[in-house]
Amino acid sequence: MKDESSNGIFSFASLRRFTTSVFEHFNVPRKDAILAADVLAYSDEHGIDSHGIARLETYYDLLKIGRINPNPVISIVREKASVATVDGDNGLGLVVGPKCMQMAMKKAEEFGSGWLSVRNTNHYGAAGYYPVMALKHDLIGLSMTNTTAGVAPFLGAEKMLGTNPIAIAFPGFNEPPVLIDFASSTVSYGKVEIANRKGEEVPLGWCIDKNGNPTSDPSEMINGGALLPLGSDANGSGHKGYCLASMVDILTSVLSGANWGPFAIPFAIHVAPLEKQVGKGIGHFFGAYDIDGFRDRTEFKKEIDEWIVTMRNTKPQPGAEKVLIPGDPERIAYQKRIIEGIPVDKEVLKSLRIIAEETGIELAQNS
Amino acid sequence: MKDESSNGIFSFASLRRFTTSVFEHFNVPRKDAILAADVLAYSDEHGIDSHGIARLETYYDLLKIGRINPNPVISIVREKASVATVDGDNGLGLVVGPKCMQMAMKKAEEFGSGWLSVRNTNHYGAAGYYPVMALKHDLIGLSMTNTTAGVAPFLGAEKMLGTNPIAIAFPGFNEPPVLIDFASSTVSYGKVEIANRKGEEVPLGWCIDKNGNPTSDPSEMINGGALLPLGSDANGSGHKGYCLASMVDILTSVLSGANWGPFAIPFAIHVAPLEKQVGKGIGHFFGAYDIDGFRDRTEFKKEIDEWIVTMRNTKPQPGAEKVLIPGDPERIAYQKRIIEGIPVDKEVLKSLRIIAEETGIELAQNS
Repeated sequence: MKDESSNGIFSFASLRRFTTSVFEHFNVPRKDAILAADVLAYSDEHGIDSHGIARLETYYDLLKIGRINPNPVISIVREKASVATVDGDNGLGLVVGPKCMQMAMKKAEEFGSGWLSVRNTNHYGAAGYYPVMALKHDLIGLSMTNTTAGVAPFLGAEKMLGTNPIAIAFPGFNEPPVLIDFASSTVSYGKVEIANRKGEEVPLGWCIDKNGNPTSDPSEMINGGALLPLGSDANGSGHKGYCLASMVDILTSVLSGANWGPFAIPFAIHVAPLEKQVGKGIGHFFGAYDIDGFRDRTEFKKEIDEWIVTMRNTKPQPGAEKVLIPGDPERIAYQKRIIEGIPVDKEVLKSLRIIAEETGIELAQNS
Repeated sequence: MKDESSNGIFSFASLRRFTTSVFEHFNVPRKDAILAADVLAYSDEHGIDSHGIARLETYYDLLKIGRINPNPVISIVREKASVATVDGDNGLGLVVGPKCMQMAMKKAEEFGSGWLSVRNTNHYGAAGYYPVMALKHDLIGLSMTNTTAGVAPFLGAEKMLGTNPIAIAFPGFNEPPVLIDFASSTVSYGKVEIANRKGEEVPLGWCIDKNGNPTSDPSEMINGGALLPLGSDANGSGHKGYCLASMVDILTSVLSGANWGPFAIPFAIHVAPLEKQVGKGIGHFFGAYDIDGFRDRTEFKKEIDEWIVTMRNTKPQPGAEKVLIPGDPERIAYQKRIIEGIPVDKEVLKSLRIIAEETGIELAQNS
């Protein structure tokens, strides 16, 4: 038995083992449990702390009260060659997501591209996980999801859209891939929450208060306010972030028949499901392109290398060290964590200990 | 003969007629000239003043010195079911673009979706024109293009990427379509140029000077500085705009074999073509989805109506009148201009008069 008061650093394997066991505890089939744990581990191992083990408590809570189906039967609702709509049978997004991404990749191999709009699903972890799956097959992969409403439309004073992320990746040859993964809000809810916990102010442009006025007090966003879309305000072209969030919302949820906009199912135990539903679950959207349908894939990958080298050689702004390539922050975190392990926040650790106690699953830091 | 000192308001038909004749003057086939004029007219008639008749001078200059091919043979370089790469034979983007969008739409009708990456092409007008083409066939349409480098990557001090726009549209049933069309920079070059002409300051976050420092003096951007990507800086999440611009650059130009990033062919007569080329021309990317492949199209369109009504009913921020739907600004401009005509800026009018004089084409304001 490990010392419970130890430093909160976990090895990759230990966290994966724990997470897998937690999903299995709710009768998620072993293969699916390993898959779901892999999606969460992707975040923790690549420094995306908001989307990994920190969310296990919520998955746990929702499975416990039966709000998520541990053993979904995923079905195609409608299909036409390169496109399809899939019903996720209210399964874990962490299981429905990878299976649908696989289907999109298969279509890409057959038809040059593949597109899946997915309804009746749940939170799917980090959007970047899915294009990384495609990279392993030398495909260009894309994923989007809608999420619980937390963002105001441009000029709006209330939460109507999720932080709706978009991710896409392009393989390099000798260079690493260009991996794009970002939310369409200026910042994540988590970033404002952390500032609030620390009692710090946030920059103007991140959020508004319950009346729709700009605020630098994070508690005012949390108490009935909203996040702002990428671009924030008129000077920053906040209408563009609103456009991006709208695109993601429509492709993931209006197209599939999921709950869109303010009706997106909250990913939280303490929030009751909304009374009005306009569809089933939340929505994802997955895509893949067969590079060979456009251009010899080796030629493409070598040119991506040249693109990367060119961008890296940009003269940096005064005070900045260098220009990064999308995906660098994740790679830097991975290199560090694979050696040093994954630092788990105190509050998150507390939640894991409760889960361990309730389920009897051993929480080892280095096993 | 009209009074040359008149108010500069043109009827829709007059501008279209003039533009068509100018293209025909360079032996652009009549059908193509009408098409190219239609693309430019879309901008003028919908209030996108930066992308319509204001650019005619540049197309004129480039055709005059033979830098654009007036009668291109567009060819498929590579193809696989739903995807293809096309060579635009250095034609007008205003002609290559619509023809490629048609090909993407045809593929969507056959394979559920259609995707064209296009190289060896030129400036294609407003990105929003192309998804609007798809709307007429009840398809979801998408377009992107790379453009002359004018934007710094996040934390970079020099121009490495274009303003690389993205456009996508979704049809409504009784409501108008959701029409998204925006550049991935915080603002356009034109917006900073206008401020410079008026001697006005611009907000911090729009641009940097030649050393990479933030500036509110538009002349400092124009003299060797750069625009900033959507999000502007670290507080505004400028890395997200950089990600968007990168995505557009790679899909349009690395995938097709066009000139990407800093190598994009300048759309200007006074800028010599760059010595180094990494591909052919600039690049576009077009896409289309058959809605019926995902969901009954009438059901989808009715749900888009509900989405629109829901977003319109968002409580507005203090001081804001209401929340708009993407596409509303273009629709508002159209309603006004179809009655009042198109106001043409003094400088633009001067350029049109020079063209009229050089070509002998009559420049009538209301014919």
